Amino acid sequence: MTHLDDRTMTSSGFYVSQEAPIVADNPVPTPQAPAPDILRCAYMELVVTDLQRSREFYVEVLGLTVTEEDEDTIYLRSLEEFIHHNLVLRKGPVAAVAVFSYRVRSPEDLDKAVAFYEELGCRMERRQEGFTKGIGDSVRVEDPLGFPYEFFHEAEHVERLAWRYDLYTPGALVRLDHFNQVTPDVPRATKFMQDLGFRVTEDIQDDEGTVYAAWMRRKPTVHDTAMTGGDGPRMHHVAFATHEKHNILAICDKMGALRISDRIERGPGRHGVSNAFYLYILDPDGHRIEIYTQDYYTGDPDNPVVTWDVHDNQRRDFWGNPVVPSWYTEASLVLDLDGTPQEVTAREEKSEMDVTIGADGFSYTREGDADGTYQGEAAKGFKLGHQL
Amino acid sequence: MTHLDDRTMTSSGFYVSQEAPIVADNPVPTPQAPAPDILRCAYMELVVTDLQRSREFYVEVLGLTVTEEDEDTIYLRSLEEFIHHNLVLRKGPVAAVAVFSYRVRSPEDLDKAVAFYEELGCRMERRQEGFTKGIGDSVRVEDPLGFPYEFFHEAEHVERLAWRYDLYTPGALVRLDHFNQVTPDVPRATKFMQDLGFRVTEDIQDDEGTVYAAWMRRKPTVHDTAMTGGDGPRMHHVAFATHEKHNILAICDKMGALRISDRIERGPGRHGVSNAFYLYILDPDGHRIEIYTQDYYTGDPDNPVVTWDVHDNQRRDFWGNPVVPSWYTEASLVLDLDGTPQEVTAREEKSEMDVTIGADGFSYTREGDADGTYQGEAAKGFKLGHQL
Amino acid sequence: MTHLDDRTMTSSGFYVSQEAPIVADNPVPTPQAPAPDILRCAYMELVVTDLQRSREFYVEVLGLTVTEEDEDTIYLRSLEEFIHHNLVLRKGPVAAVAVFSYRVRSPEDLDKAVAFYEELGCRMERRQEGFTKGIGDSVRVEDPLGFPYEFFHEAEHVERLAWRYDLYTPGALVRLDHFNQVTPDVPRATKFMQDLGFRVTEDIQDDEGTVYAAWMRRKPTVHDTAMTGGDGPRMHHVAFATHEKHNILAICDKMGALRISDRIERGPGRHGVSNAFYLYILDPDGHRIEIYTQDYYTGDPDNPVVTWDVHDNQRRDFWGNPVVPSWYTEASLVLDLDGTPQEVTAREEKSEMDVTIGADGFSYTREGDADGTYQGEAAKGFKLGHQL
Amino acid sequence: MTHLDDRTMTSSGFYVSQEAPIVADNPVPTPQAPAPDILRCAYMELVVTDLQRSREFYVEVLGLTVTEEDEDTIYLRSLEEFIHHNLVLRKGPVAAVAVFSYRVRSPEDLDKAVAFYEELGCRMERRQEGFTKGIGDSVRVEDPLGFPYEFFHEAEHVERLAWRYDLYTPGALVRLDHFNQVTPDVPRATKFMQDLGFRVTEDIQDDEGTVYAAWMRRKPTVHDTAMTGGDGPRMHHVAFATHEKHNILAICDKMGALRISDRIERGPGRHGVSNAFYLYILDPDGHRIEIYTQDYYTGDPDNPVVTWDVHDNQRRDFWGNPVVPSWYTEASLVLDLDGTPQEVTAREEKSEMDVTIGADGFSYTREGDADGTYQGEAAKGFKLGHQL
Repeated sequence: MTHLDDRTMTSSGFYVSQEAPIVADNPVPTPQAPAPDILRCAYMELVVTDLQRSREFYVEVLGLTVTEEDEDTIYLRSLEEFIHHNLVLRKGPVAAVAVFSYRVRSPEDLDKAVAFYEELGCRMERRQEGFTKGIGDSVRVEDPLGFPYEFFHEAEHVERLAWRYDLYTPGALVRLDHFNQVTPDVPRATKFMQDLGFRVTEDIQDDEGTVYAAWMRRKPTVHDTAMTGGDGPRMHHVAFATHEKHNILAICDKMGALRISDRIERGPGRHGVSNAFYLYILDPDGHRIEIYTQDYYTGDPDNPVVTWDVHDNQRRDFWGNPVVPSWYTEASLVLDLDGTPQEVTAREEKSEMDVTIGADGFSYTREGDADGTYQGEAAKGFKLGHQL
Repeated sequence: MTHLDDRTMTSSGFYVSQEAPIVADNPVPTPQAPAPDILRCAYMELVVTDLQRSREFYVEVLGLTVTEEDEDTIYLRSLEEFIHHNLVLRKGPVAAVAVFSYRVRSPEDLDKAVAFYEELGCRMERRQEGFTKGIGDSVRVEDPLGFPYEFFHEAEHVERLAWRYDLYTPGALVRLDHFNQVTPDVPRATKFMQDLGFRVTEDIQDDEGTVYAAWMRRKPTVHDTAMTGGDGPRMHHVAFATHEKHNILAICDKMGALRISDRIERGPGRHGVSNAFYLYILDPDGHRIEIYTQDYYTGDPDNPVVTWDVHDNQRRDFWGNPVVPSWYTEASLVLDLDGTPQEVTAREEKSEMDVTIGADGFSYTREGDADGTYQGEAAKGFKLGHQL
Repeated sequence: MTHLDDRTMTSSGFYVSQEAPIVADNPVPTPQAPAPDILRCAYMELVVTDLQRSREFYVEVLGLTVTEEDEDTIYLRSLEEFIHHNLVLRKGPVAAVAVFSYRVRSPEDLDKAVAFYEELGCRMERRQEGFTKGIGDSVRVEDPLGFPYEFFHEAEHVERLAWRYDLYTPGALVRLDHFNQVTPDVPRATKFMQDLGFRVTEDIQDDEGTVYAAWMRRKPTVHDTAMTGGDGPRMHHVAFATHEKHNILAICDKMGALRISDRIERGPGRHGVSNAFYLYILDPDGHRIEIYTQDYYTGDPDNPVVTWDVHDNQRRDFWGNPVVPSWYTEASLVLDLDGTPQEVTAREEKSEMDVTIGADGFSYTREGDADGTYQGEAAKGFKLGHQL
Repeated sequence: MTHLDDRTMTSSGFYVSQEAPIVADNPVPTPQAPAPDILRCAYMELVVTDLQRSREFYVEVLGLTVTEEDEDTIYLRSLEEFIHHNLVLRKGPVAAVAVFSYRVRSPEDLDKAVAFYEELGCRMERRQEGFTKGIGDSVRVEDPLGFPYEFFHEAEHVERLAWRYDLYTPGALVRLDHFNQVTPDVPRATKFMQDLGFRVTEDIQDDEGTVYAAWMRRKPTVHDTAMTGGDGPRMHHVAFATHEKHNILAICDKMGALRISDRIERGPGRHGVSNAFYLYILDPDGHRIEIYTQDYYTGDPDNPVVTWDVHDNQRRDFWGNPVVPSWYTEASLVLDLDGTPQEVTAREEKSEMDVTIGADGFSYTREGDADGTYQGEAAKGFKLGHQL
């Protein structure tokens, strides 16, 4: 761990350090058993309450490719994917996330996953035939943070449609990029994920060391998943990548044309964290989808960890545009292995929303700026004020 | 004039009619003298309080080209311009607009302008040698709406730098696109501009016929200027065009990198009105600059006039993103021919901000939607609610 | 007329002058009757030999919108158009152009057109009900250059689909931009078009004053039509505009995916002339279609005329990429008013292809460059050599 | 190894198989010692003959950032890099490549590299202090294929400028993407690289099993290096990535504006292989630089290997645009550890250029197309004919 003193201020207004400056006070014990070798986030299984309406959203609006479907389930993939699916929509009574699924390097890694989680006393289920079509031998676990995680290696190959430009839409989604999870104790969750083999790339802190969110990766992008501080376990969003920024703008335009602009929750914009261009939209059940493009390579083991000050108004939107409150407060339930929603535990630490906006919060555009825009006091700047 | 009944609802949720459905109750008399043949909005003269700081903004941040400069004045142009300037920054004690300047087709059109405004009893000044460098014989007038307008034909030609890609920045501005004026009585202003030879392309109304804003053109784009309802005469913004949308995003990115994101007022986004992609930023004096790209051809005399319902939440941002209050309320003073700020008269008609947001306003994403997002009552939709 | 001496070399390597430096030795007499007030190129009627195959190309591949169709004819428009069509495909025995059609400002301009061409002794036909669906009173003429021209004002309005982003494809065509005609004597053709009210914006010449091509406009873009020196009268291409450059790349990608890349004739690339981004593709009959974006405003009466040296290797492709010979030699036949192909007359003046490439031609990247790439001699530069 | 029969034809016209269908007849022996764990291609050291002229090209034209420089050497990096450099320009008498340098996961991997190459009897040199500034303990080796390879782990960290949009140019280079090497025997080179831990992602073959080129990766992109069949060892190109396609077009535009379009060798275009958008340009010494964007994720161990038919005219340019002969024949010399150019051995197998273009070659757009464009015979298609 890097002490706060070991970090270096950059010319862009954030810090870098060699290791994530995050310490868990209440860590999950580190298993003796080695972690499985995870390749990447691979797919999410979403429970949706109206399958046809969800199909319309993911297929007609977003243009995901249907690999297979039946009365209860739709298997979808992005244009550059070669395994069976990146998203499963399953009809169910309560909108929720059934599983966050990761692909591991080899079949043997499933045994490692079992040993790893057994040592932690987690509830698990393994199915040789897989839990969903197109996926073979799989392990599902209720992890120590309360999230339903899956690991698999075997997967049916389907055609990678990357070259099929006749199938592209203006907002073409080419890759599943990452998950984002809401959890009350970010340092605890981060430490657990580090034990699972993840490496932190960026985080948001304050001067007292409160960690509001952390991003972590297996594949060499900014993240395969992130831990967002809040009442959890819940799913904050799942993100798909486009090639270029105009593809994301095209999704906004299409949602405007379809008169569903009220399902555009936040953005488009440039993230501070990750440096990616983003958009958040809501599916018919309120599951949040991010559309994301152009973060950076993080594959070196000494990749600098970026730490943003929670009061830096450019951390979440580099252009200083406001984060809507729903983005902080709303998230999807996650299911246990029986399909029952996990109970949600309230975050006890400070809330990012509270410390940055509203009567008690403050943010700045330029740190130490005497003319700064402290909202709690004199600041009347449009970027932070009550906008409506 | 088209009656409200003569307009046609389109599949995009707005109306079209053959003529602008706008009637002035209190019109400026139509002169007998023919209007001058105006080519296009050509340049704006801005008074700025700190010339060096403004230079930094327009030259270093926005990349406009300096045609010429001296201690008190900087003459700037966009990359595709071939006349001397599109923007004059002049040092002065009070930030304001000294003139909205239009180019006319021929030298004789100046005589027409004189006759036209004389008939209206307007204060005028004509200078053979021009009021600014690079511009010849010019007429300046305090028009019946209180705005300082200039007409000229003679202009010094400078090199059109369109092919000089070595000079382009990521956010290159290629053209002056339009002005936008704040005036209390939009129908009166519109009627006057029609007499001056402008044609309305779009407007925003409510069912009772209140007109909140109107766009009008000489060159065949959506506008050379627009009339925005509010306390006036004031200048709402001046707009420069880029080639593509990513150029506008690059300006946001650069302002983030320079830690002046608090000068990004609104956007980027897609306009409903004009269908253009937009961004509003503020110069060091608070003069509002729009960056704008990709509206449509309007040059046919029967070009359909588009009318948006003021309650349509996609009229000003097609993605339904909120308009910040400052955008409705703030604007620049305009000067009379002596250089004294014109007195501002309050708008008496309904305010667009009031009728669309806040406790008494409402907006919808889908007209007639029973689940609509009426903010005044139950609506808690993030797109319209108190966001911060 | 500007003498060659009156032109000014720019920092971009071409000349500008105030008037087109083109003199016709053998002009068509200038009519006494005033020319009609032409708004813009409006549509082309193409005869195609396999209607279904052409429909596939223009609708499935290029995404034009079908306004109306029957067994013999398809009426197509671009997304920003509000008149009935920009392109008519009519089934016929010989692939050819039936008409180049222009919209005029008022119904009275049709009478002017009649008087103008009558004075020139041209064969004409006028139909109150129009020659194609959606168009009213029209005049068709065999013009002095042998081209079938149409003028009309009355047109059925259809919905402008600019805001219907749900209908956009990645390569969406938004506007008809221009025609391009092949004619043996460019100065003669230019002079005639000037009499018809067109203004030259750019041309290609050599030091001896041979004019190889000229661009001319009514609407304030670089052109509504161009005259390309060659055996004629023939139609070189018809051009549609996209919003951005990536839209053009998307058309290439789609044609690759559909395995019809052999119908991509030339480009994509940046034009020197017009500064636009371009692509040339061939329809099933070999009619050449240009996809075009981002030229510049030319609406001022003193807009500088740009003259390119025919030996400047960046004139046709600003990146110096070669022009394929077919682009110089192939073109579509045009029909007379009986529907019979017009006889083609050979160009007698020098050929642009001959003077720039091959054993007797030469081109340069930098004028006067001693190390220049004179292909006729030592130059072995890949940009100009026998590439295959 | 997959037999040719085990591969599957896709709907895009190429084959996929599970393992690279490449067998070396004359393999380099596989060492017993394990290969070092290579992270990625990290930098290239180029010898240039005129340091100032090269600086102008890489810094002024391409916008690379100077980390450090002295009289003889310039250290350059791309905007997203956090190690000292991606490119070293060193003044020398003969233009050549001094080293292809790869970063390894840990300091210990250097020992592994030493053992690996020692077993192969390769000449090596190890320097604790590194061979270039900013790089620590390094091993340089003359590999069995004759290429100068370097491995290092220790590197000085510098600021990752990804968020410094004020420094971006329109053609901003953000990452070093890959190398490309010319070698006579592609299967032999491929087998050796597989032993070194690389995995093949794509290749070009003919029906008789001749391999013309192969792409291979460590980081999960299409390649860290590729082996191109030809007289070698030589360096074909080094590639930098941009974020978007318009960035690449901007480089072309800038080179046009600077009148160095004769240094644009090939492109821009869409690759078949890799699906990336590309451009090839030449530095003042003729070293070939590729600008590259948007290939796909290849990090799964069972990532499908793509095999293109050498006669598929869309393999190298998906739009069917011709490959210029210089691209096949020209390449940079590589140095041995004494700084002497390695002797070049001629390729004995068939040449891709010969089998695809010219009198004896043929290519097709659609396989088995009876109307195909066989250049050797009847084909008159502009896409393959003698263009100039």
